[in-house]
Amino acid sequence: MAGNNFMIPRLYIDVALEPDNGIILSVSQIHYLKNVLRLETGATILLFNGRDGEFAADLVEMKKRGGRAKVTAKTRDLTTEPDLQLAFAPVKRGPLEVIVQKAVEIGVSQLTPVITERTNAPKVNVDRLRTIAIEAAEQCGRLTIPHVDEPIKLDGLLTTWPEKRRLMFCDEAGDDENQTWGGREGRAQPALDALKAFDRKAQSWAVLTGPEGGFSNQERGALRDNAFVIPVTLGPRILRADTAAIAALTLWQAALGDWNQS
Amino acid sequence: MAGNNFMIPRLYIDVALEPDNGIILSVSQIHYLKNVLRLETGATILLFNGRDGEFAADLVEMKKRGGRAKVTAKTRDLTTEPDLQLAFAPVKRGPLEVIVQKAVEIGVSQLTPVITERTNAPKVNVDRLRTIAIEAAEQCGRLTIPHVDEPIKLDGLLTTWPEKRRLMFCDEAGDDENQTWGGREGRAQPALDALKAFDRKAQSWAVLTGPEGGFSNQERGALRDNAFVIPVTLGPRILRADTAAIAALTLWQAALGDWNQS
Repeated sequence: MAGNNFMIPRLYIDVALEPDNGIILSVSQIHYLKNVLRLETGATILLFNGRDGEFAADLVEMKKRGGRAKVTAKTRDLTTEPDLQLAFAPVKRGPLEVIVQKAVEIGVSQLTPVITERTNAPKVNVDRLRTIAIEAAEQCGRLTIPHVDEPIKLDGLLTTWPEKRRLMFCDEAGDDENQTWGGREGRAQPALDALKAFDRKAQSWAVLTGPEGGFSNQERGALRDNAFVIPVTLGPRILRADTAAIAALTLWQAALGDWNQS
Repeated sequence: MAGNNFMIPRLYIDVALEPDNGIILSVSQIHYLKNVLRLETGATILLFNGRDGEFAADLVEMKKRGGRAKVTAKTRDLTTEPDLQLAFAPVKRGPLEVIVQKAVEIGVSQLTPVITERTNAPKVNVDRLRTIAIEAAEQCGRLTIPHVDEPIKLDGLLTTWPEKRRLMFCDEAGDDENQTWGGREGRAQPALDALKAFDRKAQSWAVLTGPEGGFSNQERGALRDNAFVIPVTLGPRILRADTAAIAALTLWQAALGDWNQS
């Protein structure tokens, strides 16, 4: 928990942080602090860079062209999120941004847009997704920023997949008990039951969610051909793409991640 | 699962449904079928009324002033959602609509806007929330529409609470190990651990989430004074109000609800 500090503005900044360092703040950061939050010179903010933990800093100068802060003290040691990747088919802008924002809050370490057969979304603006990821990290008290990958095709993702990394495959509306997939059991398990079978320690995981139209039968077969793929269901209703991503990450964090350390 | 029918348009309509019945469709339903989905007379749609299950119907007439369909056959028996209420402090319009849409998909039976001390949102438009709930139910394959209540103040909610109904209280950023609340243990448990202690059968539950500013200490004390209140945490990061609602409902459905019957 960020505890009592959670109302103090937090900014991500990619520079070394230690007490007495002077920090240059960008035009947009100063705009945010001055015009949105109405802070004045002398106010305290919190800074983090993804590596060194969290630091308090005083606002020294605030001008239209940028400003300066001075680091005063370390407020928190670095904590990192579990090795949890969200691989997701991009959807239209609104739900796409919901996916990225919520995934960061729930606590992923990596976001990977995956192009599938039925992906039917505008070209992914990776810079925009990175900006949303940073804002979400600032807001939720994280001390790291998840990596946002360039989009990759599903077959490329599977071909280069590290064998020991598990992939929880959310096959919304795709469960067919009469079909076999690559010789493996056809029926997907409820996600929480599937996750309970795994150990909490030394894990490397990803969650895969599809586009609004779901995966094609060929994709579902190709996915289930891999021993690292764990097909799961997310209840009896058809979840939208963004809901499925949020729900699957929540269940992983609660069952195997950092949600039961608090 | 709605199975192969999940791509056929589904409409909620509050009239009796049985084969051979003629159904009057509204101006907005015809607009949706004709101008959004580009359906023509003779096309098949699915209808449900929250009571009788799901029925196939043929579009007989589509005019600007409305239209008609004829019920052909029953396609699914009625299934109902668990007795799960979401009591939530209203937030601004975007995340408020996300909460309602996602709660319906995840599978709540009742939505109750709750006014808390720090609730800082525009007046709740209950009719608008009902419309969103119906659209989400149509989309996700549900056969019922959750009830959307008029807003109620938190103290009124607690005073009239049925004693046997459990309330999972999501106290984001409110966990304080050094404080006691009404003589009960101060520290909230991780949500999944807390839920595991309960039996799946014959349950009546609600989830309570707060506004962006959280609950006040007085509210947190008042809540914890009640034996039906189960305070829980949702991980080490501070979730936004909409993320907290989605995550809490997901965990309840996976642990105690209908997500492990598929």
